[in-house]
Amino acid sequence: MYINGVGRTKFGILSKSLVELTYEAMFNAIEDSPFAISDIDAIYVSNFLGGPLNGQLHFNSIIASLLPSINIPIIRIETACASSSVAFNQALNSLKKMPNIMIIGVEKMTGTKLMSPTDAIAMAGDHENDFEQGLIFPAAYALIAQQYMQKYGVSHDILEMVSYINHKNANRNPLAHFYHKEVTREMIKNSQMVASPLNLFDCSPLSDGAVAIIISDKKHADRDIRILSSRIATDTISLTQRADLTSFLATKIAGAQAYKDAGITSDNVDVVEVHDCFTISELLALEDLGFCAPGESSKMIENGDILIDGALPVNPDGGLKANGHPIGATGLAQIFEIVAQLRLEAGSRQVADPEIGLTQNIGGIGGTCGITLLGR
Amino acid sequence: MYINGVGRTKFGILSKSLVELTYEAMFNAIEDSPFAISDIDAIYVSNFLGGPLNGQLHFNSIIASLLPSINIPIIRIETACASSSVAFNQALNSLKKMPNIMIIGVEKMTGTKLMSPTDAIAMAGDHENDFEQGLIFPAAYALIAQQYMQKYGVSHDILEMVSYINHKNANRNPLAHFYHKEVTREMIKNSQMVASPLNLFDCSPLSDGAVAIIISDKKHADRDIRILSSRIATDTISLTQRADLTSFLATKIAGAQAYKDAGITSDNVDVVEVHDCFTISELLALEDLGFCAPGESSKMIENGDILIDGALPVNPDGGLKANGHPIGATGLAQIFEIVAQLRLEAGSRQVADPEIGLTQNIGGIGGTCGITLLGR
Repeated sequence: MYINGVGRTKFGILSKSLVELTYEAMFNAIEDSPFAISDIDAIYVSNFLGGPLNGQLHFNSIIASLLPSINIPIIRIETACASSSVAFNQALNSLKKMPNIMIIGVEKMTGTKLMSPTDAIAMAGDHENDFEQGLIFPAAYALIAQQYMQKYGVSHDILEMVSYINHKNANRNPLAHFYHKEVTREMIKNSQMVASPLNLFDCSPLSDGAVAIIISDKKHADRDIRILSSRIATDTISLTQRADLTSFLATKIAGAQAYKDAGITSDNVDVVEVHDCFTISELLALEDLGFCAPGESSKMIENGDILIDGALPVNPDGGLKANGHPIGATGLAQIFEIVAQLRLEAGSRQVADPEIGLTQNIGGIGGTCGITLLGR
Repeated sequence: MYINGVGRTKFGILSKSLVELTYEAMFNAIEDSPFAISDIDAIYVSNFLGGPLNGQLHFNSIIASLLPSINIPIIRIETACASSSVAFNQALNSLKKMPNIMIIGVEKMTGTKLMSPTDAIAMAGDHENDFEQGLIFPAAYALIAQQYMQKYGVSHDILEMVSYINHKNANRNPLAHFYHKEVTREMIKNSQMVASPLNLFDCSPLSDGAVAIIISDKKHADRDIRILSSRIATDTISLTQRADLTSFLATKIAGAQAYKDAGITSDNVDVVEVHDCFTISELLALEDLGFCAPGESSKMIENGDILIDGALPVNPDGGLKANGHPIGATGLAQIFEIVAQLRLEAGSRQVADPEIGLTQNIGGIGGTCGITLLGR
């Protein structure tokens, strides 16, 4: 199973509608692939907040409206911020029946009038048990950061380094939300508090954007990328049900399964995209995926291991923090970046000769996790 | 591939939450099956309006919270009113990898405070092109009814008969929304106009409810039901893009593919559940599925063919009109009924010795269609 084409839009605060973003990513993916749109046998679309923010559910049918008389199966998947890695996973299941499949992830989060994006995003958590008690996402991740920092004796400096590195990487990515926004350590340190200990620069932004990926059962060109494995796992969503806040069980399970399916270990991975919706989650991800022992990720960060020219480059596109987080597109944006890296088409942010890349995409507070392993 | 267990709640205006409804259907399906919950390898959940009406997206993770330490893949599908037949179709794709899968459909439509159900349901249509011009669902189906009635010279009496028969059937179904509500032809004829020519009794109700179905790759008991085929097709969603309002192309395509996969024709079908969200759509369905020629379904209705003891019993459970329409559960409710009929467990609404049953579940104004064929 191969990735034969990828396309995306710029991420950011854009004056384009949900439908326009979708069309642009689809067009770019087709252009990048050996296919015409009429070669596509099925489409999976990932979108999180189309209902609450854009008044548009049944988005699969809106895509059918862009492709009149094609009438193929089009399926919408929603699993919060993990929606697009889950859509990718489900599309792979269908490759046995249909040779060419497109997966689209899209989100339009800014300039919407129906409700506040913060209240809408809270729908990814447990409404009855957490949200009604005020536990919105920045507050939940603040609890995680507090417990982690206390347990391992880590200071906020480490989180600031994560933010700084992601912004530096985004400045090499012309499609990133924060491309060419100069960010200094001082700006990060002095930014306003959101939920202690997390300040503004610990949080990913509200972004608009879309990504489309085309997969098939065949290699059509040298630059096609092999799909080594794809796994999804779930966990309880309310923090009240978690024994430990310093690790995401769903990441550990899906990661271990994905390594096993691909016949590799974490040592074989050359480049990584992790789900840094808040800086603290980048630390948890590196540990849960086995790149270091629990509590040791701060050393990887201090050592410069995660830099583009480090031992294990992490989020070379800028991550959710600085590439942006158009929620329904985020998991596919990670796959887009790994494809660019493995094709050696990543320009000034190219990591050295990678063979295998991994993406980790989580929903809610680790309630869903999708792991994808790709290889040259 | 087989259906090994089915469970549902009563449909209606219920004082149970989205989570409580889900749990009850899951419990009932497990009780009806040879499995324990720990035997289930993956879950698909279909829910349409959890975000807009209940403030709860990422519902797959809420289900994971009901099953701590199980951590299996759980996927949410949303394709408007066709959500649960599409979830069923996707679950079948996964059976090659995982032997036992549960599909859950659920909707909590009454007693919600976040927004009006009518505005929420409109999210199944084209927001930009139709809804913002006032084309909510009753208005769209009224246009379809007007064109159909004019083209084929059919009067509103036929639609009244459809409503009357569905209510009569529901009175034999203790779990139906309108069980034991006596409905006369006079009540139907004199009910208030909603959108001409459709009056109140042409419209399905707002219902709460849930259904769960367990499928596997093996037959475990004599009462297990064989899955003959499952197909989904899509079409443009805006009525402005349709050449003809008197037929749903997605139904025709998915239906033809499903018959072909199963190696049968419409003549082999013994009992049918169609998507009568409005009475007019029952007429379109019978024609699009090949049970009669275009414009001829009114004759089937006048002849009594669609009665429980008729030549082709239609909606023996009462249909969306009278069994109820908890949107994310509707497609699975249709499958639940066909399973009951094929198992000969349908009690006073049992049709005579059926061998093959069909369900037709549509989303929006025919923008998505899921067809399922089941056999003894």
